[in-house]
Amino acid sequence: MSYFSTVDKIKYEGVTTENPLAFRHYNPSEVVMGKTMKEHLRFGVAYWHTMTQDGSDPFGSPTNIRTWEGSTPMETAKNRVEAFFEILEKLDVEFFCFHDVDIAPEGDSLEEFFNNIDEITDLIKAKMDQTGIKLLWNTANMFSHPRYVNGAASSNSAEVFAYAAAQVKKGLDISKKLGGANYVFWGGREGYESLLNTDMKFEQDNIARLFKMAVAYGEKIGHKPQFLIEPKPMEPSKHQYDFDAATTMAFIQKYGLEGDFKLNLEANHATLAGHTFEHEMNVARCYDALGSIDANQGDMLLGWDTDEFPTNIYDTTLAMYEILENGGIAPGGINFDSKVRRSSFEMEDLLLAHIAGMDTFARGLKAAAKLKEERFFDDLKDKRYASYNEGIGARILSDEETLESLTEYSMQNGDIKLESSHLEFVKSRLNDYLV
Amino acid sequence: MSYFSTVDKIKYEGVTTENPLAFRHYNPSEVVMGKTMKEHLRFGVAYWHTMTQDGSDPFGSPTNIRTWEGSTPMETAKNRVEAFFEILEKLDVEFFCFHDVDIAPEGDSLEEFFNNIDEITDLIKAKMDQTGIKLLWNTANMFSHPRYVNGAASSNSAEVFAYAAAQVKKGLDISKKLGGANYVFWGGREGYESLLNTDMKFEQDNIARLFKMAVAYGEKIGHKPQFLIEPKPMEPSKHQYDFDAATTMAFIQKYGLEGDFKLNLEANHATLAGHTFEHEMNVARCYDALGSIDANQGDMLLGWDTDEFPTNIYDTTLAMYEILENGGIAPGGINFDSKVRRSSFEMEDLLLAHIAGMDTFARGLKAAAKLKEERFFDDLKDKRYASYNEGIGARILSDEETLESLTEYSMQNGDIKLESSHLEFVKSRLNDYLV
Amino acid sequence: MSYFSTVDKIKYEGVTTENPLAFRHYNPSEVVMGKTMKEHLRFGVAYWHTMTQDGSDPFGSPTNIRTWEGSTPMETAKNRVEAFFEILEKLDVEFFCFHDVDIAPEGDSLEEFFNNIDEITDLIKAKMDQTGIKLLWNTANMFSHPRYVNGAASSNSAEVFAYAAAQVKKGLDISKKLGGANYVFWGGREGYESLLNTDMKFEQDNIARLFKMAVAYGEKIGHKPQFLIEPKPMEPSKHQYDFDAATTMAFIQKYGLEGDFKLNLEANHATLAGHTFEHEMNVARCYDALGSIDANQGDMLLGWDTDEFPTNIYDTTLAMYEILENGGIAPGGINFDSKVRRSSFEMEDLLLAHIAGMDTFARGLKAAAKLKEERFFDDLKDKRYASYNEGIGARILSDEETLESLTEYSMQNGDIKLESSHLEFVKSRLNDYLV
Amino acid sequence: MSYFSTVDKIKYEGVTTENPLAFRHYNPSEVVMGKTMKEHLRFGVAYWHTMTQDGSDPFGSPTNIRTWEGSTPMETAKNRVEAFFEILEKLDVEFFCFHDVDIAPEGDSLEEFFNNIDEITDLIKAKMDQTGIKLLWNTANMFSHPRYVNGAASSNSAEVFAYAAAQVKKGLDISKKLGGANYVFWGGREGYESLLNTDMKFEQDNIARLFKMAVAYGEKIGHKPQFLIEPKPMEPSKHQYDFDAATTMAFIQKYGLEGDFKLNLEANHATLAGHTFEHEMNVARCYDALGSIDANQGDMLLGWDTDEFPTNIYDTTLAMYEILENGGIAPGGINFDSKVRRSSFEMEDLLLAHIAGMDTFARGLKAAAKLKEERFFDDLKDKRYASYNEGIGARILSDEETLESLTEYSMQNGDIKLESSHLEFVKSRLNDYLV
Repeated sequence: MSYFSTVDKIKYEGVTTENPLAFRHYNPSEVVMGKTMKEHLRFGVAYWHTMTQDGSDPFGSPTNIRTWEGSTPMETAKNRVEAFFEILEKLDVEFFCFHDVDIAPEGDSLEEFFNNIDEITDLIKAKMDQTGIKLLWNTANMFSHPRYVNGAASSNSAEVFAYAAAQVKKGLDISKKLGGANYVFWGGREGYESLLNTDMKFEQDNIARLFKMAVAYGEKIGHKPQFLIEPKPMEPSKHQYDFDAATTMAFIQKYGLEGDFKLNLEANHATLAGHTFEHEMNVARCYDALGSIDANQGDMLLGWDTDEFPTNIYDTTLAMYEILENGGIAPGGINFDSKVRRSSFEMEDLLLAHIAGMDTFARGLKAAAKLKEERFFDDLKDKRYASYNEGIGARILSDEETLESLTEYSMQNGDIKLESSHLEFVKSRLNDYLV
Repeated sequence: MSYFSTVDKIKYEGVTTENPLAFRHYNPSEVVMGKTMKEHLRFGVAYWHTMTQDGSDPFGSPTNIRTWEGSTPMETAKNRVEAFFEILEKLDVEFFCFHDVDIAPEGDSLEEFFNNIDEITDLIKAKMDQTGIKLLWNTANMFSHPRYVNGAASSNSAEVFAYAAAQVKKGLDISKKLGGANYVFWGGREGYESLLNTDMKFEQDNIARLFKMAVAYGEKIGHKPQFLIEPKPMEPSKHQYDFDAATTMAFIQKYGLEGDFKLNLEANHATLAGHTFEHEMNVARCYDALGSIDANQGDMLLGWDTDEFPTNIYDTTLAMYEILENGGIAPGGINFDSKVRRSSFEMEDLLLAHIAGMDTFARGLKAAAKLKEERFFDDLKDKRYASYNEGIGARILSDEETLESLTEYSMQNGDIKLESSHLEFVKSRLNDYLV
Repeated sequence: MSYFSTVDKIKYEGVTTENPLAFRHYNPSEVVMGKTMKEHLRFGVAYWHTMTQDGSDPFGSPTNIRTWEGSTPMETAKNRVEAFFEILEKLDVEFFCFHDVDIAPEGDSLEEFFNNIDEITDLIKAKMDQTGIKLLWNTANMFSHPRYVNGAASSNSAEVFAYAAAQVKKGLDISKKLGGANYVFWGGREGYESLLNTDMKFEQDNIARLFKMAVAYGEKIGHKPQFLIEPKPMEPSKHQYDFDAATTMAFIQKYGLEGDFKLNLEANHATLAGHTFEHEMNVARCYDALGSIDANQGDMLLGWDTDEFPTNIYDTTLAMYEILENGGIAPGGINFDSKVRRSSFEMEDLLLAHIAGMDTFARGLKAAAKLKEERFFDDLKDKRYASYNEGIGARILSDEETLESLTEYSMQNGDIKLESSHLEFVKSRLNDYLV
Repeated sequence: MSYFSTVDKIKYEGVTTENPLAFRHYNPSEVVMGKTMKEHLRFGVAYWHTMTQDGSDPFGSPTNIRTWEGSTPMETAKNRVEAFFEILEKLDVEFFCFHDVDIAPEGDSLEEFFNNIDEITDLIKAKMDQTGIKLLWNTANMFSHPRYVNGAASSNSAEVFAYAAAQVKKGLDISKKLGGANYVFWGGREGYESLLNTDMKFEQDNIARLFKMAVAYGEKIGHKPQFLIEPKPMEPSKHQYDFDAATTMAFIQKYGLEGDFKLNLEANHATLAGHTFEHEMNVARCYDALGSIDANQGDMLLGWDTDEFPTNIYDTTLAMYEILENGGIAPGGINFDSKVRRSSFEMEDLLLAHIAGMDTFARGLKAAAKLKEERFFDDLKDKRYASYNEGIGARILSDEETLESLTEYSMQNGDIKLESSHLEFVKSRLNDYLV
C-alpha cells in the first residue's frame, strides 16, 4: 500500500524547476570537498514529528490529516511503519530516529508495551534490511506519561526511577537489534517545576546513576552505541538540568562520563538557552563532544520550542561550517527534529517540509565548503591571532612565562597598537558566500 | 574632613521609625540562629558603584552630585578613600571590594599606575588598621581600557595578555598587602563580539593559562586568597565565556582548577542568563563552589544589567536560605554590586540605598532562619523523597541495582501511585514566612 | 452528589491556622476602606481551568484526577455543573466565567452544539438562581477547533468568519439568559503564524466588522453587556493583533469602538508583552478602559503563558492599588484565569490553589488600602509634580504657553535644579506596607 | 582638508571586485521597477553615530580613532562638518540626519548653544548648497543632559518642559533654514524609571501638549515638515511611552494628532519590542503612517539596542517589500541609525560599514522588486483570501450580513474545508528570491 501514490521519488531538478516536489539544491550524489552531499549531510527523519504529531497545540485540537490511522493502536502503528519507510525512500533519506512510544502503543502494562515494541521492531528491521536505511538513534520517552510528572531518573519516586531504567534497557536492546549508531537521552522532565521542593544535587546524582547503568548494560550486551545527551534549557520543565552544551559538559565531567557521552545539539534548544546554534556546536567541539544534531529552527521572538523546519541559510551555512571543521558529523547525523506548522496540515506537507529543510542544508553545505576552500575564516583568524606565533605570544603558549616575567615585559613594552576587526565588512563579505 | 557631616552613624530603630537614615530591619548585634546578623551577612560595599559611578548611561551624561572631586586625579582618589571609609563606618559595614582602576588613576604608564596604587593602598591600609574594616576581595579591571577591546587573557594580542598578567600580579600583591580574603576574576571582555572571527578554544585555553599563573604566583608569595570567578552571560561582550555557574564549572573542571577556584555569583547576572539567583547559588553548592555573592537585583523585563539595590524580599529570603544551607558564606560575603538609579543623584542616596539593601537582606535572613528552624523546606523534601529511604529506593542509592534488576522489579511492580506536590499551597505558605 | 464531601465551606481562620483548607488572609466580610473584601475583590472562577483542564502539556499526557468524568460527554458536562457550583460555594466565590465549549460538547453540528448549550445553561441558570452566584462574563472559544487554524474573524475563509459570527450570537444569547455583566473577546488565533502570507489590514478590518455586528445584535436583543477585549501578544499565534493594552486601544480608536469596548487584562499576558501587570492596568485607566482582570501570574524566566495562581504579594498589592484608583473594578471582577501545576493533580488542589490566590489578593487589597489611606503614593506624587501647580507649570497646563514664550522663559531661567527621586528608599518603604 | 585622502569616491564594481572600498551590489543609477536605486533607497547618514560616537560602552572607554578632534569644542564641531560632507560625498549619499547636540556644543547657556547652532548650520547650509545633499530630518536631543533625567515634556519639572520647548523651537527653525523634509521626536526619557512615582496620564498629556505647540509653531513660521515619532520600548528609560508602532498610534489617535504625525521606525527598536521590523512597517501602513525608517539591526539574543549596520538580507528584503507596497518611502528615507562595533575603531570602518549597509539594502531592493514583479506574495494572498471575492465573503465585506444571517448561513453550511498554507514551501521558495 502507498500513502503517497501520486508522488514519485523526489529528484534534484535544480533551482529553475517549477515542481514543488523536487529538490532545487540538494543533489545527493553531487561531490563537495571530496564527498557526496549525501555522505556529508547524513539526513535523518524523526518518527515523532512525521508520524505521530497531530497538529494540536495548548490552545487547539489536531489539524493534521493523516491517512494511516487504523482501527486499533497496533494497526495504526503498523501502517505508520509502512508510511514512514515510503517517506524515507521518496525523500532518499538514509537515517531515522525514534522514541519507544512513537513506534508502539504503551498498552496496559510494561510487558504489553515491550511485546508491542518487539513486534513493530521486527517490521522495522525487515524494512531496514530491504531498503538499506539505517537507525541514526533511538531513545526512550521518559517524559510524557503521568508517572514522569516529576522526572524519570530525577523523580522523587524510586519506583519511577526503576520504570525509567526498564525503558532504557529496552531501548538499548532495540538499539542492538537495529544496529543503532547512537543512543540519545533527552531529559524533558529531568529538572524542576519549582526549586522550592527540589533537591537538585540528589536528583542529578540519580541521573548520573542511570547513565552509568546504561553504559554498563551496553558493555554487557556487547553493543556500544555513542551515548548522547541532548541539552534544552526549559520546556516542558520550568528548568531542565541539561540547560545547554556547557552545562551538560559540567555534568559529564563531574560524574566522569566523558568517555561514553557526547552531545546531541538542537538549533531551537540553543536559541532558547540564549545561544546561536553555531555557538553550541563550537562549545561541543571545544570539549571534543559534538555527537549529532537535531536540525530545526526557532522563532527568535517566541519563548518556546517551535521546532520549525530549517529554512534560514545563514544558520545552515554556519552549522555546516562547524561540521566541516569537526571533520564531519558521523557517526551522528542531521536529524530533522522539525514539525510542520499547524496550518500545513496536508500529507504532502510532510514531503514539502523535508524538501525545504534538505535544500536549505544543501545550500549551507555548499556555502560552508566555499568558505572553507577559499579559507575565508581561516585566513581571517590566522591574521587575527598572529601575535601568538612568535615572540612573547609563542612563549606564553609554551608556558614559559609567569606573572612576574609578563609584568617585566609589559613595563617595557609601551603602548599596544591593535587593529580594527572590520566586523561590518566581514559580515557583508559573508553574504557573498551564501548560495 | 567629613562628607556626610549631618549624618550620624546609622542605627537600628525598628520598623516604626520615621527616620529614613535608620535601619528598620538590620540590627547588627541581633542574634539569629546562634550568630549575630553582622556575622551572618558579612556586608561589603563596592568601591566602583559607590565612589566612581557617575550616573551616566549610554544615552545620558553624568547626573551624580559627588563632593569629593579634587583638582587632580590623585587628589580625587585620596578624597575618595576618606569618603569611602566614612560611608563604611556610618553604615557599620565590615567589608569592601574594589578594582584596581577604582582606587587609583591609571596615569600614563603601567609604572605610574602601579605607583598610584601603592600610594592609595597605603592610605587604605591605614584606614583599615584604624577601623577594623576588611578587604572582602579585590580584582583587576581588564575590560574598560581600549587595549581590552577584544579581551584580556582571551585577547587576540599577546601583548594584551601580558598586560593583563601584570595587572593580576599587582592585584595579588595588593591582596597580600591588605589581607584580602578572596580574589575575583570577572571576564567582562573574555568572550566574543562575533563568533565569525573568534577561536573559542584558543581563547579559553589562554584564560586558563592566566588563572594558573595566578595560582602559581599566589603560592610563590605565600598569599592564597580564595580565587573566585564571576559568571555573567553577556554585556559588555555579546557572549561571555563564563555564561553562568554551570558553564563556569565546566571550564573549571576542564582545566583542573577545582582546588583553587570557586564562584562569585551575582543576582542580576543570574537572571540575565535565564536563571533565578537561588538556582545559581544551588548549582554552585552542588559543586561545592559557592564562594561569595554580589548582591543586587535586575529588572526582569529588561535585557541588561541594571544592578539595582536589592529590595525584593522573596529574592533575599531564598538567597539567605541557600547561604544558611551552605553553612554561611565566609570567607565570602554579601557585596553590594548595586548602583543608585540615575535619578537618585544626591550624596544621601548612597546611604539610603545601602540601608534599603541591608534592611532587605536582614528581612531575608530572618525569614530564612524561620524557614530553617521550622524545617519548612526540610520537612517538605524529606516527605517528598521518602521512597529512597528504603526498599528499591535505598538499593538504587547504594548502587546495587542494574537496568536488568530494575526491569524485573518494574515488570512486577504494577501502577505507580504518586502524590500531588500541592505547589500552590507551598507558595502561599511561603508568604507567611516573609518578614 | 458531592465531589468534595470531606471539605466544609472554606472559612477565614487567620494566619495562625494549621488547616490548609482555610483562608488565612481573605475574610469576605471584613471591611476595608468602607467596603467588604468580597465587594472589593469580586472573585470569579474560570470554568476552563477548573473543570476542563486535564494537566497535559505539549510534551505530556493528562495528569489530573477528576471524579466527574461520566460515560458520555453530556453526562460529564452535567456533572461538571454540579461540581463547579460546589466549588464556587465552598470557596464563597460570587462570580464565574466560561467559554461556550467549556460547558457543553460541540457534538457533530452547530445545531447539536447549540442544543447542548441550551440544555446545560438551563442547569447553570437553575444553580445561579439557587445560589445567587453570578456570571461575570462568558465568551466563545474561536481558536481551538481546526476550522480556526487561521483565525476566526481574521480567517482567510469567509465560511469561518460566518461560523464565528454564529458562536458570538449564541454567546450573546447566553449572556442575556444568564444576565452576564460582561462579554469577552480573546482572539487567540486573531493574528498570524507568518506575515508572509497575511494581509494584516484586511484581517483587522474583519475583526472590527464582527465586533460591530456584536454590538448591533446586543442592541437588538436589548442586552448590553460591557464588551471586553483581552490582549495577549503571542501564543497560540506567533503574533496576535491585540498585543497589549495600548495596541488594543489603537485598534479600538481606529474603528470607533470606544463607546462599547473596554479591556480585560491578564497578568501573564502583560509580562509576555514586556510589561508589568500594573503598567497594563494603568494604561487602560489612561484610556478610561479598565474593564476586568484575569488574575494569575507568569514565570518571568519562561516565554509562554504559565497561568499560575497568583501568589506574589508585590503583584497583587500594585494591582489592587490600580483597582482602588479606578474606583473599583465593577462591573468587572477578578477572575482566576489560573491553572494548577501539572504536579498538583489532586481534586483538593483546585481548592488549595484558589485559596492561595484569594489569600494573596486579600493581602494585596489590605496593603493597597494602607498605601491609599496613608497617602504613600499620593504624597510622593504631589510633591514630585508640584512645579505644575503654579507659575510656568500652571500656565503650561492651561495651554497659555507656546514654543516662543517658553524659549523666552528658558533663556532667562538659568540652571534648573532637580531633586533626587530617592527610588531605593521608596522601594524599601513599600516593603513596610506589604501585609 | 580631507579626512579620507587615500579613498576615492566609492564606486559600484560588482560582486567580483576585491576592493573593499567599493559597492558590490549598490549601483546608484541602476533602474529597478522604473526608478533608480538611489531614488528608491534615499539613504541617509546619521551625524551622531558617524561623527560623535566614540566607541565607549557602559563597561569601557572610547576606542574610536577620529582625526577631526580640534583644540576647542567649536573647532571640533567645524572639522566634523567638513569630514561629514566628505563621507556623504564619498558614499554618494543624498541625505543626512542630526540632533542639535550632535552638531554644536551646548556651551554654558541656552543662548550660547543657540549661537553655536547658528554658526554651524551656516557651515552646513553652505555645504548643502555646494553638494546638493539634503536634510532628511533633524531632531532635538532631549534625553542626554542631566536636566532630562526624568523626561523632557514628560518631566515632573515644568522648567524642564520649558527648556525642551525651547530646543524644539530651535529645531524647527533649523529645519526651516536647511529645508528639512521631516522632523523627528524620539522620546528617550519620555517614559518612566519606576511606575511607583509616575503619573502616566499627566505625563502623556504633557507630551501631546508639546507636540501641538510644535505643529502650531511650524504653521506660524510657514514651515511644515512631516512630523515623525520614533517608537522604542525601553532604554534608556525602563519603559518608554512610545513602545512600538501600535502604541504610538494609540497615542496619536487619542490626542488627535493623525493629520500631522507619522512614524519613524527603527529595526532594532522593533525587535526589542518583540516584533519583526516588517511587522512594525506593516502596522504603520495599516494606519497610513509609515514615515521614514532608521536602518540597523539588533542582536536577537541581546536585550539592548546594539544599532548594528544592517547585513541580514532577509531583513532588508522584507523591509524593502514593505516600502515598495507603500509606494516608496519619500519624503522619508533610509537613515543608517547604525554604529560601528567597538572593535571596528578605524576611520575606514565608517566607510566600510556604510558600504555594507548600502549593499545589503541594495540586495533587499532587488529581491523585493523580483518578488513584486513576479507577484510572489500577491498571488499567494489572492489565492488565500479568495473566499471573500464572492458569495458570503463578498456580502460580509459589503456589510450586508449580521450575526443572525451568518448563524442561518452556518447552520446550513456544513463542514468547512480549508487548504494547507504550505508555509515551509513558501519559506523555502522565498530563499530563491534572495539576491
